[in-house]
This record gives sequence, C-alpha cells and structure tokens, in this order.
Amino acid sequence: MKIDGASYRSVWVDPRDGWSVRIFDQARLPWSLDILRLTTRDQVAHAISTMQVRGAPLIGAVAAYGLALALRTDNSSDALEHDAELLARTRPTAVNLRWAIERMLTRLRNTPAAERVRTAYDEAARICDEDAAQNAAIGQHGLRLIEQAALNKTAGEPVNVLTHCNAGWLATVDWGTALAPIYAAHDKALPVHVWVDETRPRNQGAALTAWELGHHGVPHTIIPDNAGGHLMQHNQVDLVIVGTDCVTRTGDVANKIGTYLKALAAHDNTVPFWVGLPSTTIDWRLRDGVRDIEIEQRGAEEVTHMTGRLPDGALATVQVTPDGSASANPAFDVTPARLVTGLITERGCCNANEAGLAGLFPDLA
Amino acid sequence: MKIDGASYRSVWVDPRDGWSVRIFDQARLPWSLDILRLTTRDQVAHAISTMQVRGAPLIGAVAAYGLALALRTDNSSDALEHDAELLARTRPTAVNLRWAIERMLTRLRNTPAAERVRTAYDEAARICDEDAAQNAAIGQHGLRLIEQAALNKTAGEPVNVLTHCNAGWLATVDWGTALAPIYAAHDKALPVHVWVDETRPRNQGAALTAWELGHHGVPHTIIPDNAGGHLMQHNQVDLVIVGTDCVTRTGDVANKIGTYLKALAAHDNTVPFWVGLPSTTIDWRLRDGVRDIEIEQRGAEEVTHMTGRLPDGALATVQVTPDGSASANPAFDVTPARLVTGLITERGCCNANEAGLAGLFPDLA
Repeated sequence: MKIDGASYRSVWVDPRDGWSVRIFDQARLPWSLDILRLTTRDQVAHAISTMQVRGAPLIGAVAAYGLALALRTDNSSDALEHDAELLARTRPTAVNLRWAIERMLTRLRNTPAAERVRTAYDEAARICDEDAAQNAAIGQHGLRLIEQAALNKTAGEPVNVLTHCNAGWLATVDWGTALAPIYAAHDKALPVHVWVDETRPRNQGAALTAWELGHHGVPHTIIPDNAGGHLMQHNQVDLVIVGTDCVTRTGDVANKIGTYLKALAAHDNTVPFWVGLPSTTIDWRLRDGVRDIEIEQRGAEEVTHMTGRLPDGALATVQVTPDGSASANPAFDVTPARLVTGLITERGCCNANEAGLAGLFPDLA
Repeated sequence: MKIDGASYRSVWVDPRDGWSVRIFDQARLPWSLDILRLTTRDQVAHAISTMQVRGAPLIGAVAAYGLALALRTDNSSDALEHDAELLARTRPTAVNLRWAIERMLTRLRNTPAAERVRTAYDEAARICDEDAAQNAAIGQHGLRLIEQAALNKTAGEPVNVLTHCNAGWLATVDWGTALAPIYAAHDKALPVHVWVDETRPRNQGAALTAWELGHHGVPHTIIPDNAGGHLMQHNQVDLVIVGTDCVTRTGDVANKIGTYLKALAAHDNTVPFWVGLPSTTIDWRLRDGVRDIEIEQRGAEEVTHMTGRLPDGALATVQVTPDGSASANPAFDVTPARLVTGLITERGCCNANEAGLAGLFPDLA
C-alpha cells in the first residue's frame, strides 16, 4: 500500500544488509512514522507483545522472520523448537501466529542446520507474499459486496461501511482484510465512506485505521465505539466489515473487544455483517468460539491511561481514571456465527458455518 | 450522599448569602472537587451546556435555580418567558430539563412580579427535595432486584451490576437513579460489585461513576465500553442498571450513547436490563423513541481530544486522532422497549410499555 505515494509493506527485510527485519512502530502511529530495525528473536517477541506490530496476519509474518533471526544465533534443532515456542506464546488469541510458526517448523525440522537460516528467510518471505496475495483476493471478493450495496444508493452517494479496530494493511503484510475491499472500491472510484470505531482501549481505529485511510485518501469519520448502534438505527451504515484473529470451523469469530456488540446491532437493524480473513486465521480444531477461544487479558494501564499529542506537539500519556479504581481489559470477544452474514476469504465469500467453510476449503477442513 | 464522610447534594443554595447557587464542577472530576458559585442565568446556561452539571434530573433542578437567578435581574413576565426558553434550550434531549422549566413557569406566571424571586427559590427547592426523595424510593425498589439476584449467588459472592455513563448522585440532586439501588444494597451490607463502562467520549463512567463509587466505598471495576458483551457472554454480569434522559410513554429509553449496545448484549445473554428513572423523565407525548426523541450532536473535540492527569499531577488535554480525520459525536441513543426488562421508578417497578407506565402513573399518563 502507499503512504503519500510511496509503496510499503508492513514488514520487510532490509535490502541494505539482507537480513535485519523492518517494521513500522505502530505504537507511535499516527504521531510519527518510525521504522524499527529488528535484529534478534527477543526484539521480535517484544515488538509483538507490546503491539509495535499487531494484527493477526502481520504478527504471523513477523514471528516467521523472528525465527529466522533466532536461527542466525543458534541453528540447532533444540533451539529451533525452543525459539518457536517462545515466539508462538507472545500473544495467545491470533491463530495466524501459531499457524506461521507451525509452518516454519514443518519446513525447518527436516532442513540441515546449516541451511536453516536461508530456508527460514525464504519461507518467511513466502508467507508474506502469500498473505499479500490472499488479502488482495479478499479485496476483490469483498468489492462485490460494496458494489451490490452501491446499487441501492443514488448516484454519487457513498456506501457507508463501519469497521472496528484496524484490519487494514497495517494489520497484515499488505492490503488488509476488512479494509481490502474498501481500498479496492476506492481505487475503482466507487464512492465509499468509512465509519471508524475508535476502538478503545488502544484506539487502533482512531490511531491506525483513520491514519491508513487518510493517507490513502479514503473519506472516513471516527466515532466512539458507543455510536455504531445509533448510526445503524438511523440507516447510516450500509454494511459492516471487520477482520478477525480466530475463526472456528463453525464460523464463530474472535475479533477485537466490542466486535460482538456491533454484530448484535447489525443483526438488530438488518445491516449485513461481514468478516474478512485469510484461511490462515481459521482454527479448524475449534467448534465453540465463546467457550474455546482463549481471550487475551491485557494490562490495566491500557484502560487507565491514554497517549496523545499535546498542543505543543509533544506526546504525553495522561491518566483518565481516578486513583484506586480497578480496571479490566479483555482484548477480544467472540461473535457467534449466527450473527455473521458471511466470511470473505481469499477463495471467495461463504456462509459463516461449517458447510460454508468446508465448501471453500475442502483441502483444509 | 457522602464524600469521604461529609454529606452533600449536587446542587444547593449557598447558606451564607441565601441566593447564589452552588454546584460541583463535574468537568473537573475526578481530578479536583471544585465547587462553583453561579450567580446569573448565563452562568447557569453555560454550566449546563458545557456539562459542568449534567444528568437529566440534575440539569432540571439547576435550570430551575437558573430561572430564580434570572428573576433577580428582571422579574417581568416577558423576561420570565424569555429566560425560561433560553434555559430550556441549553440541551435538547433530557426531558427533566423542560419539565422543570414548565413547572416553574406554571407556578410563576400567576405570581405577582414582586414575589417571583422568592416563589422561584421555593419551587426550585421543592423540585430538589422531590428529586432526592424520588431517587431514594428508586433505590429501595431497585434494591429488591439486587436482593433477588443475590439469591442465586453463593454467600459472600457479590452481585455484579453493569452500568453505563453516570446515573449516580452526581447526575441527580441526590442518590442517583441507576446507582441508587447499588448504594442501597451496599449500605445494607449486601455484597455488590459494579462494572463501570468508561463511557466514551466524555468518560462519565470512568470519571464520575468510578469516583462516586470509590468515595462511597463500593467495589467497582472500570471497563472499556467494548467489554460488556464479552463479560455477559461469560456470566460475569448479573444485571444491568442504567439511567435515562427520556422515556417515551411506550417505554423506549434514550440514554447515553452506547446504552443500546449493552441492552442488545443483555438481551442476547438473558441478563436483566433495568432502567432507573423518576417519572419526571417520561415524555408522555412520545410513542416511538428511535423516530421521535431528539438526539443531541456534540462537538467533535470530545472525540478527538481527551483530558487526563500527567505524571506530575497537572491536567492536560491530548489529541488522540490524526490531523484531518473527521469525527462524529451523537450523545445519546435509544433502546427500544422490547430490550428493556423493566423500569424502576419512584412508585415501583413496571414493564417497559404503555400499560406498565400507565398502571403506575394513571395521574400522568
């Protein structure tokens, strides 16, 4: 994708040295576009756990490179298993993270130690290329949904899409999942306007989605997470598209906390609720999302404190809750399949149920 | 109610001069407990529109005193009508505001000009006393709901109540609406724990409800507005109690933006969803809340900026959204009566429908 005309992916190997890993520090966006250089496994683990990189597809890709970096230090089989487990544990909910690590292990276990570093970089690059291609395909399949919605609008009136959190190109290697159809529509000159949930407590919507859309020129409006139901009641939302960190084989969808509330409102107002995902986000072992998907609990300070820009341009973190009040911070919730209109995958759209997913992915189901 | 042992109401006439009006500056809470002195109609209008005082019952009471202050300057009939209209227009959604102004007008129009100031202070004081008494009654009626919920808990395990925004004593003259039953339960040594929605964008939950509960010693946990559905899915909420700014004769409920989403989640998880209100919040002329209740649109800066405390103790306002991104800020939404388990009024609990309300209030319906 492009930032003010220049093309980027959200993770890449530095072409100058051929091995260090580059990411944007997403914890600093939208305030500054800092490119970090990761050279060790522990730097990668830190970047994932502190959410300098986040988004299920992206942390899978970055973790794959993390394993390549780890192998530069120790290419033994013992180290490989240990490093893989350490990286896989950096965050618990995203399926893509463990999927990428498993794919790397499958490739590397039978590779001679001396060849592992090269093989790991090659495999991580393939994971990245495939993710970008899958998301581009999601964009084209999802585009049709926006085109359909446009048929109900008068000429020039935008299709209003609501999204939660950030499932744009910053959450993936490129294109995004939920935002890929929006970029595809915008690039085709189809008028589209995005309601961006700010997505407390970490504000990925206000900080990342709004920044992405703004730099790509897509019209958008930031709203409090509380506002989506009201907008749907008043016919101001044509469809909802979100990303996901884990989809069960039955179509239950784990995504950023608050997604379930928007799915309920969409259902109550007959607004289509779509979820964009590459098949790497599906956990085929799980049947009951509410019961079985592990929900990450993050630190209280994400709720009690907020970072932003002072009038003088400096960044500052302010406390927004009274001293002595506890806070809780579950990072994800699960939207039952019954509330999901359908899934947008790299192979097309399907119903959010076992038949739908197995029909598109008979080789994986 | 008490702040660290000292008794307060949220509005009172200064006993030293007998006429100036005292309020807490709620825009400064929880950071400092500043008591403001209001001496003119315009100061009252400013305090209401900038939300130094907020909460439907409280702004009605403060506006009543605002009219008394206005009459000190001009006690003519023309001025009375003009000042009343100006005060009634400070905020559009709360029924209590216009109700209090209408009640004052009814009393004052037939009062000789020379007696109007004294009559206005007396009537405003009666409005305050009645509000406090009504809310105390709401507390006792709602207490029974918490006692019922406690029957399903093991001994010592708290009843978990989720609330949105602030409908505590700061939102009323005393006791609160949604929080009145919680204070009644706590004061009766019934274990109760409150999930406090932070309530973006103005954070009345994190700033006011948490502060109130903390100073009264009620256990509570601040959560992002996004988290309530997840907690309900996992049986961590026994009941929801919220306040309201307007109830139609059919039981539709306007309340702080985001309330509707919590009502949907409660309905989806069979969690009782109750609304506490004095009858002064009912607009008997309205039948369809989503269609007919006027929803206030507030400034974008409430979404784009956030105020909190820096590590050195100073308050600061930080921008939390990118430059150039628009934002929208509808202040209320409407929860259809079908999602409301029942209403807690000063005369008892009733179903959220016309028969329920008319049954309790045949004299008003």
